[in-house]
Amino acid sequence: MTLKLHCFGESGHSYKAALALNLAGLDWEPVYVDFFRGGGRSPEHLALNQMGECPVLVDGDLTLAQSGVIIDYLSEKTGKFGLHTAPQRRDVWGWVIWDNQKLSGMAGTTRFMVNFLPEDRRPADVIAWLQGRTAAAFKTLEKALDGRDWLVGDEITAADLSCCSYLYYPEPFGFDRKAFPNIDRWLDGIAALPGWEHPYDLMPRAFPAAA
Amino acid sequence: MTLKLHCFGESGHSYKAALALNLAGLDWEPVYVDFFRGGGRSPEHLALNQMGECPVLVDGDLTLAQSGVIIDYLSEKTGKFGLHTAPQRRDVWGWVIWDNQKLSGMAGTTRFMVNFLPEDRRPADVIAWLQGRTAAAFKTLEKALDGRDWLVGDEITAADLSCCSYLYYPEPFGFDRKAFPNIDRWLDGIAALPGWEHPYDLMPRAFPAAA
Repeated sequence: MTLKLHCFGESGHSYKAALALNLAGLDWEPVYVDFFRGGGRSPEHLALNQMGECPVLVDGDLTLAQSGVIIDYLSEKTGKFGLHTAPQRRDVWGWVIWDNQKLSGMAGTTRFMVNFLPEDRRPADVIAWLQGRTAAAFKTLEKALDGRDWLVGDEITAADLSCCSYLYYPEPFGFDRKAFPNIDRWLDGIAALPGWEHPYDLMPRAFPAAA
Repeated sequence: MTLKLHCFGESGHSYKAALALNLAGLDWEPVYVDFFRGGGRSPEHLALNQMGECPVLVDGDLTLAQSGVIIDYLSEKTGKFGLHTAPQRRDVWGWVIWDNQKLSGMAGTTRFMVNFLPEDRRPADVIAWLQGRTAAAFKTLEKALDGRDWLVGDEITAADLSCCSYLYYPEPFGFDRKAFPNIDRWLDGIAALPGWEHPYDLMPRAFPAAA
């Protein structure tokens, strides 16, 4: 049965799940949620996830929200991504939580404000503060990747999937790959894996003309 | 052997772990980290956790950082808190991630800025934005607790431990218990459990005079 991922291209959180599905070689398809135009609050979407968030995975009778929870399910199902099999399972969870709070949580919001809010509604002080927080998170990530191909262990885990997701997008939000050589090399390593695709090639976008 | 939790009283993230230890009836003691005065960047603390964060749990040879990871360990060790035993294990993880990103992640920062930063260094626009985000998170929590004693299943889990942590503190940061009757009742229910103690009674504080 084809798994369905309710998502949209601009959502880095959706991309974490979409990339996990693709790298695992699973049979899946995206279901576009018109999130920026209220699609998250539609009765159909709220029936899947009462918080109105993306992504949501539907696998037959099972409906799961949140990228971390979806990757946990895919990890259990496939034995990949280290949330059930790696001896360093707790290290993987630690990075997933850290990413949601300190990296993607901040970078995703910054990226939204800088690129998808109308210019006269962009809060300059808040954006500056968020960019300070994301810069600190990039430094932590850069240091952790020193001399390493993967954040935990010897292969890609949910830690890498979670942390990389916003860093492939072309729209500027304060991240410069060239300033972080370890992150740059690590992103190239993930992109070289069989099944890797860019978020805009995996999921339909709200603003296709913005590229 | 006595477990040691490296923590400080004002840290709601530390409180999640301290409360789990106490509710589980484990033999543990706090080790004070003078976080606001650079204690997180001391060589001793960085040797435990290279990110310089609190809490850190030391159990013999095992050292674990991050409240979610620590509660995962305690859940596996004791069979409590639903991260390994509950049929709704993924729902529990979902709340833990949600809390770290959207509730504690925002409320903890707001509380720090409003109470522990010097008045002339408090960024008004950022505080207003963070308070808007926390208000949205409180609404989500209030709705989820409608007609329920616990967020997931029929007993306390890591979901409740994670989400409740900042809501027992006396310093104002934009949360009014009386405005959220379901949250108010749920906090009373947690506080009625054997082993519950207030964060300032479980962990040494940086600013004991502030109460």
